[in-house]
Amino acid sequence: MLPEAVMKQAQQEMLDWQGSGMSVMEMSHRGPEYTSIAQKAEADLRELMAIPDDYAVLFLQGGASLQFPMIPMNLLRGKSKADYFNTGAWSTKAIKEARRYCDVNLVADSTDNHFTTIADSNDWQLSADAAYVHYTPNETIHGLEFADIPDVGDVPLVADLSSTILSRPIDVSRFGMIYAGAQKNIGPAGLCIVIIRKDLMGDVLPGTPTMLNYQTHADNDSMFNTPATYSWYLAGLVFEWLKQQGGLAAMAEINKRKADKLYQVIDSSEFYANPVNKRYRSWMNVPFTLADDKLDKVFVQQAAQQHLLTLKGHRDVGGMRASIYNAMPESGVDALIAFMNEFERQHG
Amino acid sequence: MLPEAVMKQAQQEMLDWQGSGMSVMEMSHRGPEYTSIAQKAEADLRELMAIPDDYAVLFLQGGASLQFPMIPMNLLRGKSKADYFNTGAWSTKAIKEARRYCDVNLVADSTDNHFTTIADSNDWQLSADAAYVHYTPNETIHGLEFADIPDVGDVPLVADLSSTILSRPIDVSRFGMIYAGAQKNIGPAGLCIVIIRKDLMGDVLPGTPTMLNYQTHADNDSMFNTPATYSWYLAGLVFEWLKQQGGLAAMAEINKRKADKLYQVIDSSEFYANPVNKRYRSWMNVPFTLADDKLDKVFVQQAAQQHLLTLKGHRDVGGMRASIYNAMPESGVDALIAFMNEFERQHG
Repeated sequence: MLPEAVMKQAQQEMLDWQGSGMSVMEMSHRGPEYTSIAQKAEADLRELMAIPDDYAVLFLQGGASLQFPMIPMNLLRGKSKADYFNTGAWSTKAIKEARRYCDVNLVADSTDNHFTTIADSNDWQLSADAAYVHYTPNETIHGLEFADIPDVGDVPLVADLSSTILSRPIDVSRFGMIYAGAQKNIGPAGLCIVIIRKDLMGDVLPGTPTMLNYQTHADNDSMFNTPATYSWYLAGLVFEWLKQQGGLAAMAEINKRKADKLYQVIDSSEFYANPVNKRYRSWMNVPFTLADDKLDKVFVQQAAQQHLLTLKGHRDVGGMRASIYNAMPESGVDALIAFMNEFERQHG
Repeated sequence: MLPEAVMKQAQQEMLDWQGSGMSVMEMSHRGPEYTSIAQKAEADLRELMAIPDDYAVLFLQGGASLQFPMIPMNLLRGKSKADYFNTGAWSTKAIKEARRYCDVNLVADSTDNHFTTIADSNDWQLSADAAYVHYTPNETIHGLEFADIPDVGDVPLVADLSSTILSRPIDVSRFGMIYAGAQKNIGPAGLCIVIIRKDLMGDVLPGTPTMLNYQTHADNDSMFNTPATYSWYLAGLVFEWLKQQGGLAAMAEINKRKADKLYQVIDSSEFYANPVNKRYRSWMNVPFTLADDKLDKVFVQQAAQQHLLTLKGHRDVGGMRASIYNAMPESGVDALIAFMNEFERQHG
């Protein structure tokens, strides 16, 4: 979902970007017009997230899924072990791919509690010789989210921020690397943003393709080859929009309010339920079940009639899931709550 | 460059695709609306290119540059050697990356003639034990193009068709694999189309990332992870437009006429020159020099005033280059020719 204001601007500029006579899609990615778009997007992202100068910002392709092999290929740097938290479906995918390149030690594993809570830090099994520690701050399917950035000492911390990037301020200096597929909380699919400490790049596993070496892209301002130009441009419009909204502190307030409201409706009802430990509930993805799962289909259908879309839960969890990313306005959550209350009144 | 009709349609549909109330950018890539868009695009491409059923069609990310390592990783299949033609900058890049995975034998090398001609087939050095033969049918920088599909016997032939795909009919059954970054002759950057014989997939080099295994994408209809949804949609609009133009036979007529006209102006003048062997001249990229290279800058500036854009030649070649892909209408070539004649009259 993209903010409506962003889509309207993109629509208006589609055939003629700012009087250039060209569509963004027609520009050479090395020409002055596109260079200005690309550089402004990076500068705005750096400002929004307060990214320190010793971090590179890369605009890549292939989604977070291509990061799963790139992380061990680039970050093992002579070591043979990495630490991973397993807190849901995305962690599991990252771990499965990493195991093809190194020993993976599980710091904590939420499989046995069906991804409804995260082990206390006293129970974490961190390795002394790990090249890095990987975690997924928010798991979109189970709605399980770390309450804080894990303290892993001096080992570089790597985070899949696909579903929470730009939803609140975050201290980038705590991380070795952050990555985020753009299609959840930024907007356009086909773009993956990587924020990586510069000293971690350049020492890759033998056989790593040139295109999968972060250094290749850092050395070429993400233009080693033609990037996903239009997605990068749209991301830049989203960054501008976020600045206009007051930046990430303002988004955090709105996002927290949206999530709190929705969980309150669920918790104060006997009809709706969410199984996740309250301390680790996601701000972004709120899965919930109905008292009678035979009503699931009716719920989804009636919601759709009110233009409340894509509420069906993931097949692994069932029930419903409300994804309330940045682009979902508070009024959208209010409309969902009104519908949920009315649905409970009719069927509860 | 995208056809103007395609951009206008995309603009119109941007906030509401065919009454769905959703932008294509907001659709779940697994939902029924997007699935119909994706499937129609593949079906139209199969129809346009008459792609046989024993070929998979994949819609990937990463551009042709990511294909450079994927080709040896996927197609060596236990062998250790591959044959490559070197006919320009793109071949050279493909060869450089392939050398990291296997022995590369050069079938023919146009370096010494500055990429102005291609060796006669009698002089080709094909290996008996090559896993595949790779070539670049059209080299965009030097404007050097194979006149025919090379006959390499039973060894799978692999072609980087980025700059000629859909510009004319081609016999897909002659190839083991065809790939094409979309941003030259299809339209949107961030999409790479791969057409591969199904029996060639599945036997990858150890250490090949799951995302770089063609079988992964073939098994998941290119939706193993979120694809470049909007670029795929735009490609589909281009395929529809091509069908409306009469398909690839009709495009071939127009494209040949566009190229012939332009070369005729160059050849009939003492002011303009193109060094490429006439037999191997590109239909898509026409590089030319002026009699006095001090006039290059003036040429580019005056052309831009008439909205004739991006004519500056690549820095490796100098001079000018007219890229006359599918989306460039014949009237655009006529306008360029009129300008060239007038420029010669003034400065010749």
